[in-house]
Amino acid sequence: MELINQRWTLSRYPAGLPSEDDFRFETAAVPELADGEVLLAVRIVSLDPGQRFLIEEAAGMVPLGGVVPAWIVGEVIASRSPDYPIGTLARDVMAQGGVQRYSVVKATDLVPVRGDAPLSWYAGALGMSGQTAYFGLLDVGRPLAGETVLVSGATGAVGSIAAQIARIKGARVVGIARGTEKTQRLIDDFRLDAAIDASAENISSALQGICPGGVNLFFDTVGGEVLEAVLPHMVFKGRIASAGMIASYNRTVSLPGLRNYEIVFGRALRWEGVFVGGYVDRYAEATAQLEAWARSGELVFEEHVGVGLQAFPGMFKELFARRPIGKMLIRVDEAG
Amino acid sequence: MELINQRWTLSRYPAGLPSEDDFRFETAAVPELADGEVLLAVRIVSLDPGQRFLIEEAAGMVPLGGVVPAWIVGEVIASRSPDYPIGTLARDVMAQGGVQRYSVVKATDLVPVRGDAPLSWYAGALGMSGQTAYFGLLDVGRPLAGETVLVSGATGAVGSIAAQIARIKGARVVGIARGTEKTQRLIDDFRLDAAIDASAENISSALQGICPGGVNLFFDTVGGEVLEAVLPHMVFKGRIASAGMIASYNRTVSLPGLRNYEIVFGRALRWEGVFVGGYVDRYAEATAQLEAWARSGELVFEEHVGVGLQAFPGMFKELFARRPIGKMLIRVDEAG
Repeated sequence: MELINQRWTLSRYPAGLPSEDDFRFETAAVPELADGEVLLAVRIVSLDPGQRFLIEEAAGMVPLGGVVPAWIVGEVIASRSPDYPIGTLARDVMAQGGVQRYSVVKATDLVPVRGDAPLSWYAGALGMSGQTAYFGLLDVGRPLAGETVLVSGATGAVGSIAAQIARIKGARVVGIARGTEKTQRLIDDFRLDAAIDASAENISSALQGICPGGVNLFFDTVGGEVLEAVLPHMVFKGRIASAGMIASYNRTVSLPGLRNYEIVFGRALRWEGVFVGGYVDRYAEATAQLEAWARSGELVFEEHVGVGLQAFPGMFKELFARRPIGKMLIRVDEAG
Repeated sequence: MELINQRWTLSRYPAGLPSEDDFRFETAAVPELADGEVLLAVRIVSLDPGQRFLIEEAAGMVPLGGVVPAWIVGEVIASRSPDYPIGTLARDVMAQGGVQRYSVVKATDLVPVRGDAPLSWYAGALGMSGQTAYFGLLDVGRPLAGETVLVSGATGAVGSIAAQIARIKGARVVGIARGTEKTQRLIDDFRLDAAIDASAENISSALQGICPGGVNLFFDTVGGEVLEAVLPHMVFKGRIASAGMIASYNRTVSLPGLRNYEIVFGRALRWEGVFVGGYVDRYAEATAQLEAWARSGELVFEEHVGVGLQAFPGMFKELFARRPIGKMLIRVDEAG
């Protein structure tokens, strides 16, 4: 019996916000496995701002007609890797899974799912989003108890986890988000110390009042004007962990440059981009810790679950247009 | 007998290139020492681009009428610190020494000069310039043998030492300088692998040819357009050590922003400002190593020595206008 795949491919490179016309739904035969590859029945597709970056023409990652990249969780249904026998649950760490029903992935791009949390958790709070927050905050940012940690995009899938980890580690945490609903959630649900509404307040003025002693660590998922507004508030020897630059992803014109970058030198900052794929050998550690925090209630998160691959283009657009609180993902089958 | 000081003070904040009218030569009484302070007879005044940064109005470091900050080497002639008895040679680490004949400095801002190298070395290759190169390259940059290290301002007091340390550590080293004389010296004297003439070549095109595999570590003393040209050539997970931003120091209009800063995130770079003052407890280690390299001939350097404090304004201007190869310093007395 030949297995027929359903998949979303890239029909053109998006200009600005992604639209339905940028993608094409199609069927195709599932190819034979090469040595070291496994075939996954995709169960959960993670939707992430980073996908937008990957489908930029300039990124050179996805040709027109190629499958839209996505981090996924799936079940091994055929295998040419001894590490991934049939029946294994696995998630991919390089966005090679793709927005599709069946996915052929190299075993080296997978980590096994161990544990009995709901499968969606492994695509969100315990998945790429949670891992990015965990390693970006703890390994790159290294907050100390009592330090002031600022998080942008603080209600997002990554930012909300990072902010809560900073709180758990004893930092004073300030979140930036847009709108009163979101800033209220930062205080009430994520239990941050303060919130800045970027849609109503001048970030720099707000920081002056809220962080008079400066910011020790800025966990940034936005970049652009937010980054520029925060730079003058960084303490000497402060750190910036860049885990995303959502301000740039959907631009249609060049953004202005970062005018005050000299502060990186003048204040001897350390500014690092977070590459979660570099921590694969520590995913098990992070997953166990994140799950423990989630089960104890110290770490809360929200999921927006679409059902069926048809949900993809609309949800992907909504990810940027509405920037919902928490994590967006697609359950490929009703059953999950 | 009252000791009379001679000193250069700031008469106005420089606009653009520093000029003689920005400074005033004056005499003044030497104040009494407070507990923990020592009085130094200044022997060597180091001239550094970083001084220009310190006397910016925006830096808020030096009031009008204040002594021009400088890193110095001096001899203790009165002391209220048990760590610095009279006769001790010491250098300051916070630019508190100043462009003057006598200097009252907190003992905690000094390190003793140990060793019998020429005194000028402790202001240059073994001094703040050498320490900045040493810790900026090795502690911040951490080059591995075989990696490609790019150095801007590569004939400067800091850049030339950093480039040679990278070569000693087995890296492939490319230097950027302005003019054929300087680039020739990069190859002939500092024995780098390749040189780029920023006054004649397009840096980005040159890098494409010279560093087709990309730059692992960029040791930058320039910033501005040079930094922007280099960023697209950084390898994934590359490092940038910013040890100066000479492109910005004498601007009279705002410089354009850094347009491609997103690469810091996209390539998961680590970009750090070098703060040499943070390594005071390791100066002895660095000094010994730098001296050993210098005596063995592996590390070469050049000094431009003015005699007498009157040389200051002219040499300070020349530091930026001509950007001489190597280190500029002033020997306060003929005898040294």
